Amino acid sequence: MHQLTKPESSVSSVDRNAIAQPSLSDQFSRLRAQTDALAAPLSPEDCQVQSMADASPIKWHLAHTTWFFETFILEPYADSYRAFDPAFKVLFNSYYNGIGEKHPRPERGLISRPSLDRVRQYRAHVNAAMLEFLATTSQAAALHSLVTLGLNHEQQHQELMLTDLKHMLSMNPSAPVYLEAVAENMVATKSATAWSSLTGGLVEIGHDAEQNQQFAFDNESPRHQVFLRPYQIANRLVSNREYLAFIADGGYSRHDLWLSDGWDRVRFDRWCAPMYWREERGAWTEFTLYGTQALDLDAPVCHVSFFEADAYARWAGARLPTEAEWEHAVSAADALTQYFGSRWQWTASAYLGHPGFTVAAGAVGEYNGKFMCNQFVLKGSSSATAEGHSRVTYRNFFQPEKRWQFSGIRLAR
Amino acid sequence: MHQLTKPESSVSSVDRNAIAQPSLSDQFSRLRAQTDALAAPLSPEDCQVQSMADASPIKWHLAHTTWFFETFILEPYADSYRAFDPAFKVLFNSYYNGIGEKHPRPERGLISRPSLDRVRQYRAHVNAAMLEFLATTSQAAALHSLVTLGLNHEQQHQELMLTDLKHMLSMNPSAPVYLEAVAENMVATKSATAWSSLTGGLVEIGHDAEQNQQFAFDNESPRHQVFLRPYQIANRLVSNREYLAFIADGGYSRHDLWLSDGWDRVRFDRWCAPMYWREERGAWTEFTLYGTQALDLDAPVCHVSFFEADAYARWAGARLPTEAEWEHAVSAADALTQYFGSRWQWTASAYLGHPGFTVAAGAVGEYNGKFMCNQFVLKGSSSATAEGHSRVTYRNFFQPEKRWQFSGIRLAR
Amino acid sequence: MHQLTKPESSVSSVDRNAIAQPSLSDQFSRLRAQTDALAAPLSPEDCQVQSMADASPIKWHLAHTTWFFETFILEPYADSYRAFDPAFKVLFNSYYNGIGEKHPRPERGLISRPSLDRVRQYRAHVNAAMLEFLATTSQAAALHSLVTLGLNHEQQHQELMLTDLKHMLSMNPSAPVYLEAVAENMVATKSATAWSSLTGGLVEIGHDAEQNQQFAFDNESPRHQVFLRPYQIANRLVSNREYLAFIADGGYSRHDLWLSDGWDRVRFDRWCAPMYWREERGAWTEFTLYGTQALDLDAPVCHVSFFEADAYARWAGARLPTEAEWEHAVSAADALTQYFGSRWQWTASAYLGHPGFTVAAGAVGEYNGKFMCNQFVLKGSSSATAEGHSRVTYRNFFQPEKRWQFSGIRLAR
Amino acid sequence: MHQLTKPESSVSSVDRNAIAQPSLSDQFSRLRAQTDALAAPLSPEDCQVQSMADASPIKWHLAHTTWFFETFILEPYADSYRAFDPAFKVLFNSYYNGIGEKHPRPERGLISRPSLDRVRQYRAHVNAAMLEFLATTSQAAALHSLVTLGLNHEQQHQELMLTDLKHMLSMNPSAPVYLEAVAENMVATKSATAWSSLTGGLVEIGHDAEQNQQFAFDNESPRHQVFLRPYQIANRLVSNREYLAFIADGGYSRHDLWLSDGWDRVRFDRWCAPMYWREERGAWTEFTLYGTQALDLDAPVCHVSFFEADAYARWAGARLPTEAEWEHAVSAADALTQYFGSRWQWTASAYLGHPGFTVAAGAVGEYNGKFMCNQFVLKGSSSATAEGHSRVTYRNFFQPEKRWQFSGIRLAR
Repeated sequence: MHQLTKPESSVSSVDRNAIAQPSLSDQFSRLRAQTDALAAPLSPEDCQVQSMADASPIKWHLAHTTWFFETFILEPYADSYRAFDPAFKVLFNSYYNGIGEKHPRPERGLISRPSLDRVRQYRAHVNAAMLEFLATTSQAAALHSLVTLGLNHEQQHQELMLTDLKHMLSMNPSAPVYLEAVAENMVATKSATAWSSLTGGLVEIGHDAEQNQQFAFDNESPRHQVFLRPYQIANRLVSNREYLAFIADGGYSRHDLWLSDGWDRVRFDRWCAPMYWREERGAWTEFTLYGTQALDLDAPVCHVSFFEADAYARWAGARLPTEAEWEHAVSAADALTQYFGSRWQWTASAYLGHPGFTVAAGAVGEYNGKFMCNQFVLKGSSSATAEGHSRVTYRNFFQPEKRWQFSGIRLAR
Repeated sequence: MHQLTKPESSVSSVDRNAIAQPSLSDQFSRLRAQTDALAAPLSPEDCQVQSMADASPIKWHLAHTTWFFETFILEPYADSYRAFDPAFKVLFNSYYNGIGEKHPRPERGLISRPSLDRVRQYRAHVNAAMLEFLATTSQAAALHSLVTLGLNHEQQHQELMLTDLKHMLSMNPSAPVYLEAVAENMVATKSATAWSSLTGGLVEIGHDAEQNQQFAFDNESPRHQVFLRPYQIANRLVSNREYLAFIADGGYSRHDLWLSDGWDRVRFDRWCAPMYWREERGAWTEFTLYGTQALDLDAPVCHVSFFEADAYARWAGARLPTEAEWEHAVSAADALTQYFGSRWQWTASAYLGHPGFTVAAGAVGEYNGKFMCNQFVLKGSSSATAEGHSRVTYRNFFQPEKRWQFSGIRLAR
Repeated sequence: MHQLTKPESSVSSVDRNAIAQPSLSDQFSRLRAQTDALAAPLSPEDCQVQSMADASPIKWHLAHTTWFFETFILEPYADSYRAFDPAFKVLFNSYYNGIGEKHPRPERGLISRPSLDRVRQYRAHVNAAMLEFLATTSQAAALHSLVTLGLNHEQQHQELMLTDLKHMLSMNPSAPVYLEAVAENMVATKSATAWSSLTGGLVEIGHDAEQNQQFAFDNESPRHQVFLRPYQIANRLVSNREYLAFIADGGYSRHDLWLSDGWDRVRFDRWCAPMYWREERGAWTEFTLYGTQALDLDAPVCHVSFFEADAYARWAGARLPTEAEWEHAVSAADALTQYFGSRWQWTASAYLGHPGFTVAAGAVGEYNGKFMCNQFVLKGSSSATAEGHSRVTYRNFFQPEKRWQFSGIRLAR
Repeated sequence: MHQLTKPESSVSSVDRNAIAQPSLSDQFSRLRAQTDALAAPLSPEDCQVQSMADASPIKWHLAHTTWFFETFILEPYADSYRAFDPAFKVLFNSYYNGIGEKHPRPERGLISRPSLDRVRQYRAHVNAAMLEFLATTSQAAALHSLVTLGLNHEQQHQELMLTDLKHMLSMNPSAPVYLEAVAENMVATKSATAWSSLTGGLVEIGHDAEQNQQFAFDNESPRHQVFLRPYQIANRLVSNREYLAFIADGGYSRHDLWLSDGWDRVRFDRWCAPMYWREERGAWTEFTLYGTQALDLDAPVCHVSFFEADAYARWAGARLPTEAEWEHAVSAADALTQYFGSRWQWTASAYLGHPGFTVAAGAVGEYNGKFMCNQFVLKGSSSATAEGHSRVTYRNFFQPEKRWQFSGIRLAR
């Protein structure tokens, strides 16, 4: 299950390499069941709705992750495989132009049929075919990386299911509850921020696909050298209490704190607090997957855009870390906390290819490379990230105005 | 049930006044059950989706029609009534500003909770309370007109359920089926159009609330005199075959046939045929509630906008009838056919108040009057109109670019 | 010159038929010079700007009115005529699809060349050609109605030049002055409103093209019978003082006073007063062609939309007159004042063809008919209307949300 | 004068440091006169128009560059200075929130007054005051950097005047001419592309404000180390002939060549060639400031967006250089040509602050820093760039979809 419902594990993925991996079939079964479990508390209606163009219906996530295995593994490699429904090829393609036509993203919520039940049958059909294929094929080793890509892909969608669900429920005036309130058990951030000092110099970041057999997405490669000046990085994330001080100091009404595009956004969308915060008679609440809760002042601030993270940092006399600074500090086993399992952390780095990055051939190559424009990198992972999906080289990315992910702030200077 | 599933009854409502009416309770029960029957073949997912801002989810229709009885009858008049859920007051208000806040119309499809099941419980709760109220109250007579308004209101929504459902299903690339294909049994329109000649003069139209005890909406009153010049009116509706000739003659590419706003719309939305028509390799099909069907050339053309009706008429060397011409011809028991139960018929008349029209006091007064702007009157009724909901004074109205209603064309000259 | 700069003449056009008309050449020269006089105080920059899509640059008005004579008279009928510049054919076509391509309306302000000077040369070129043609052609009589149409067309543009200029200047924070302040000499409206009572019945309105040799646009015909119920009509227009009482009574915040579309507009555009009004510390001013002026409480309210006129009437316990009521009352030589030369008066009538209306063949037929959709009729004329351009059958028309014309309110009940 | 009208000078700015600089007053007078010369061939109408929100009217450029000297130098430092017109403070502020209110950018073209003549008087007024101030003040040395900033600011606007003018004239169907056709004398690019190989390693880029007394904008600092892998860079720009091959090979219809956002733009805006290119019956022309010209196949391609440059590079089996690669290669006196005075060259680098970049205090600090989001860096300079305004550390920046600048393509791999 996701971090959302259990104590934070702050262990770095760096240490995991030594742990023996279960078989690919077992990994597949376990992960697919986790996805089902996420949707288990939800009704057909809950799984149908698309609350904005950025988000997708839960039903679509359930189907699309299944489509990925069907399209990239079963259809090309499993000779005896019969497609569950040929119409799904278009219906559940997300953005792979190489695969052919795709249903328009903003209209995903309009597709009432297939029903949730039928999508579950589709999952079962593909699950059975995949397990048979993995058990019998002689190509298993060759396809290992493709299956692993599918699993990691589904893990990403597990997180998106939670972020999209949260947004959808927040549109309902009655503020519905997804899960019974379970304490998030975030590491409390009551202590003052301490700063780690790093000397920088010529450091290495990125994934080394030749030396490191662990899975990584293509955009994490290649490992490469970056020259860093000496810098300091905060040992913990910015708390709600600290962010409230920014608000109280007029943070949302001082143009000098904001990037020009950010300031336009503040005024156009009338931002005055993080997404999901609400103030009533001086008391702040936050909409969560457990319903509306009193704002926990010691929790790390969540659901802020890059623009807000950047403006907060400027107000605090600091700045956001670059991707390389963040990755180097965490890799160096520095004294940092909350780097995984709490909040994604906006960096000052645009999402572009690492030096020497090349796109894989074929439709799978559309996975990451074609989005390298007008987005910023987030590092770490959040309480909604799938278990075991946290590593220092991971590169999450969103447009600077997006707020519906579990995104927070770590400072540097 | 609706005309959609049974042979057309072309009997005029004029003759129905003589038939003994069932009791109000029986009318209520029967009509509410009809609404449920319309939704019976649909899944929770089908009932959740809102496919455009003009349309509403089926679940919303089921709840809103119930809200109407709760808000305008049970809450003000039934002392012991307990609201099913206070949140529904806002959630299922359509446009009655006088009632208070309302949930934004384009966001109706985002509300996954209450579920369809819970909305059905809401219906049952209000049904029971209404029947008890009608059986026991001494005010029954006084409230008769209000209850009847609620029933007629629900009949209107029965038709909207079908039009909105059709639009929603049409957005699905797999063209789903709502009902098993049952022949619509439309009166065939193979014969040439015949023209009825009327002398006009000073005629009366509209509903006379004092003399006529039958229900009518406020906008049908008062009955008033209109001066008509001599005119001719077609005895049947324009057929698909005739409309195809218009298309073949370049109807959608000749600016001189169109109103200026209509021509803009043709080019902007790239109209080239009625909504739901599709051409593949020279063969025309039409999406219907029975799935995609070969175009029936003898059926009356359907799902055309006022702009298209007006352009067709100009091309045919004719014009659309005015509301008064239509109403007078049908009332005069002229030789017309297909005036009820086939297609709504666009008129050349803007939807404005009849001379002397006044709006009722209170929120119920918002029913019709406040929409008297930039809409055109449609007369008659369609195959989707609720049984017994056809009368000559009825005034349907839509903006001139709307096409998702069952709207067709009758010519005049 | 226009009414704007001289005392109101409230004489009805009805009486003018007896006055001897000057020759067509003299009319032409005089009217073309009036247009030039309107633009005389303006710089090339003033004449270049298009301040919104509804408005056109003054330079464009100067050229388009010239294009009209060139296109509809000189090119088809004057054998020896040489076009001034062939490119102008597209550049200065307004909306005549029958003539061919036209330059997009919202981009009229982007055309810096031809310069204002060159457009003046174009005017002189066409003036000379027209005068020679009128002096020498044997077809003069036959073309009389076409030339007269061109003159009336130019008179309409004279008014639009003033309304468009006013809007453009109002966009300038320094509130520039077009003319030195000359009192508008409006009939003061200090007295209480008196109501004229008319018995109605079967009356005639519209222009009788066979009996009446005076010029009228095609949309004013044919003369036809309308049945009117007894009604009362106000003898004067609503004053600024009265309109302020509506504002003070919360007129812009009471939904029950507004049509649904109007209420949406009030909230979306944040209307809280007529266009060009501004309140500073309790004092109201109005931007005028003489610059910013203190609001004259006794002047008729101006620059209100149909929605505002309709809401005001509802607030005042009255309604707007229909077109037929207005025309009949003024024709009947009733005790009305301010029907011409003050403010255009919104009616409750949609702009549709009079019964029996037919469109002229050819591009000239695009003049009026194709706009008969989603507009309301205004009657009378305004202080910006060209001299001699006021008559009871005249039908002005604009969309219900438009406010940049000199439009006001007369009540009926 | 600008490169546009004289032979390209490909001398690197690196060599210019040795040339003796004229006095600040002389520099000021010469540069201000250059700006006037650019506008000299233009009419008041030409100078009035704003053809899109990205562009500004020439009149506005003339006034805003003057406002800069008035606001940042004369008002704060010249005691006896009297503002030419206080209203200009708001009217001609571009984006300096720190200065106060500003007139909305998309409405700059609506301001017909002040006239062009009056703006020229404004320029003369400020010129005289500046020259007197520079001649007499004891603070001249202290203000040297601020005056120099103003001069460099005006040089940037000189280029924008040409790009904005070109766009405006291109909107005119008659394709007007700004200057008489003078050959651009571009270095012909007939030879095959040669590649320079660089070894990379730890290199230095950026401006060293302490060591280098030459003017540079704040965003060019600080000088800092970057680690580069070995790379190759093309010795010349991509030619029109080469770009035509990309088009002929379906470059605009192959999704796999494009970034996702770029592909959306291609389809939405229907791009099929660089801006200002037109094809008629197989012959390509290009709109230029000399009017429409046959496409010069040997000239470097111009007016392409980042998206097009990136897609072209992918098609050619190459990539765009990073900013550091470009700057290092040119600084290393490599065998490159066409780096200055031809086309701005898109890089693969997002426009972000150099490591250690800090924003200046006060409104001047708004000059560059607040735009560091969603833009890409362009290096070099173009044929429209002001004389002497080319240096290796210069950082131009635009959004990836912008095409109206003189932007071209240099490849790397």
